[in-house]
Amino acid sequence: MHELMIQTDRRDQYVAITDRVQRVVAEAGIGDGLAVVFVPHTTAGVTINENADPDVVHDTLEQLDRMVPWRQPFYEHAEGYSASHVKASMVGSSVTVLVAGGRLKLGTWQGIFLCEFDGPRSRSVWVKLVEG
Amino acid sequence: MHELMIQTDRRDQYVAITDRVQRVVAEAGIGDGLAVVFVPHTTAGVTINENADPDVVHDTLEQLDRMVPWRQPFYEHAEGYSASHVKASMVGSSVTVLVAGGRLKLGTWQGIFLCEFDGPRSRSVWVKLVEG
Amino acid sequence: MHELMIQTDRRDQYVAITDRVQRVVAEAGIGDGLAVVFVPHTTAGVTINENADPDVVHDTLEQLDRMVPWRQPFYEHAEGYSASHVKASMVGSSVTVLVAGGRLKLGTWQGIFLCEFDGPRSRSVWVKLVEG
Repeated sequence: MHELMIQTDRRDQYVAITDRVQRVVAEAGIGDGLAVVFVPHTTAGVTINENADPDVVHDTLEQLDRMVPWRQPFYEHAEGYSASHVKASMVGSSVTVLVAGGRLKLGTWQGIFLCEFDGPRSRSVWVKLVEG
Repeated sequence: MHELMIQTDRRDQYVAITDRVQRVVAEAGIGDGLAVVFVPHTTAGVTINENADPDVVHDTLEQLDRMVPWRQPFYEHAEGYSASHVKASMVGSSVTVLVAGGRLKLGTWQGIFLCEFDGPRSRSVWVKLVEG
Repeated sequence: MHELMIQTDRRDQYVAITDRVQRVVAEAGIGDGLAVVFVPHTTAGVTINENADPDVVHDTLEQLDRMVPWRQPFYEHAEGYSASHVKASMVGSSVTVLVAGGRLKLGTWQGIFLCEFDGPRSRSVWVKLVEG
């Protein structure tokens, strides 16, 4: 298992981590298999989304914010960031990516993003490789 | 493959199953690898969320209910629980968790939850371990 | 790795692909393990949902459309289909399904669906099998 450390600097932020995950794959010398990218946090997640136009990330974060408002009259969680938990649960805690020929196999426009929903914080990302 | 049986007792409910999945891992004697937790239902799912403050689960269920109302004028599904299907699809049918040193590797605040969206019902959870 | 090609014919559409994924599993001759179904697109995803009553898919697509409107005043993505990216991120880029005795192991009502959110288009689906 490999660990990446990511420092976020805003409350809601997508941080592209494809290159760092790719480096883990290259250094492990794995040929074919799977890479599981797992975020051990409950107010952050990980997703695959478009990596070309940054407006896509902007629009996604805004839209998530409309769907899951930061304040709701029924929120009971005293620490006050229930919205972060809901968003994290919606995007999920892990992505599974194919590895072929020693490289992550992603679509042309795809990138892997750490999804920060309660930043700024210091975040971990775990990468587990399985050959096969 | 290992099967857990879970009895739910409300329409919407998160049931913590981390300890039971951990027991499967321990009994299988697996050292390092992956645990895939899969829910074979279409009105229930599985997610990873905060396991410390129960208010987080309360707030998550309420917020999902606002996003996906139980009744919508355009629902055509005769059995009447389309909202359950949509919520199940949003949280997903499986989570993949790393296993290291014979234990599930989760973040400090993370727990695995069966997500009931059409209870009360008797639910199955399948656990598949892959070494590597 | 195996590739399926899917032609969609509407903007929003779920295409059942369970049988085609099952054929990949059968032809590979794998006994037990995992099948990872991965969609290399950013305006399409993959999910597991009910495969019996087509109204469930209808209602799910309608409900996703209410949650994530096609037009929002704050969308900045020039190509105009930010909603597709958000929906794709919500359902996710991959599903992991157990394989046992040479067959996909799904619940009675479950099917695997390619989720088109910006069709009609020609889509790829990658299937990776891991024995174990």
